[in-house]
Amino acid sequence: MTDEQQIRAVMERWAAAVHDGDMPAVLADHAPDIVMFDVPEQGVRGLDAYRETWPGFFEWQAAGALFEIESLEVAAGADVAFAFALLRCGMPADFDRDPEHRLRLTIGLRKVEHRWAVAHEHHSFADASGSPDAQAGAGSADA
Amino acid sequence: MTDEQQIRAVMERWAAAVHDGDMPAVLADHAPDIVMFDVPEQGVRGLDAYRETWPGFFEWQAAGALFEIESLEVAAGADVAFAFALLRCGMPADFDRDPEHRLRLTIGLRKVEHRWAVAHEHHSFADASGSPDAQAGAGSADA
Repeated sequence: MTDEQQIRAVMERWAAAVHDGDMPAVLADHAPDIVMFDVPEQGVRGLDAYRETWPGFFEWQAAGALFEIESLEVAAGADVAFAFALLRCGMPADFDRDPEHRLRLTIGLRKVEHRWAVAHEHHSFADASGSPDAQAGAGSADA
Repeated sequence: MTDEQQIRAVMERWAAAVHDGDMPAVLADHAPDIVMFDVPEQGVRGLDAYRETWPGFFEWQAAGALFEIESLEVAAGADVAFAFALLRCGMPADFDRDPEHRLRLTIGLRKVEHRWAVAHEHHSFADASGSPDAQAGAGSADA
């Protein structure tokens, strides 16, 4: 497999494991020093902290939510890579309300001993209230 | 300069240009096919669309907002790199309300003709309502 194919396989396995609530498989290709930008304002640091973020999410997935990679773009060098994806992540009702609802995911990877490991994840939903553009709007309103 | 030093310089120049509202400098090290995950749910694609996101933000910066890189971690290969940063981005009142308030930024870069170019940006503010964990909470409440 090419590096791009290996990284696509890592991400597809990870997404399936997230949906299935399979913790060992969620963690299998992650670096010990993973830094995730998700809920805590300044990030989740280290594999132990990363592990702790998942149980509540697994329950939600088991209750009927989707977690499916819709598109994935990969830029792979010899030993560093990044990738970004749009995912269908939500309950069916979320897509009834907003068919365009997507989770945006960016990952950074390093190749260590011939295996790609995820060293960074950044997850977000589009959210007008939390975006720089919306901040700019809020700033203008304040001014 | 090492690749890491070059990338740090790209990011410091870009952040200063964002704060100063200097559009040519904001765009100077970005790839024509930049994909930014920011406000639009499925991303901003291409340098023209990327350019259009900035004027409102520049106005907000000029009205007294900060845009300062606080921490920056870089993983640089020979021709692909990623980096992630925490930035102080907000009006002084935002930090009065929440001293931990940070913009999280992840970028993917490719080296083209001996220069690093930003091919991907992902910006988010921590936002409980838009996060997977919060979605999980919402899902549990629905169940």
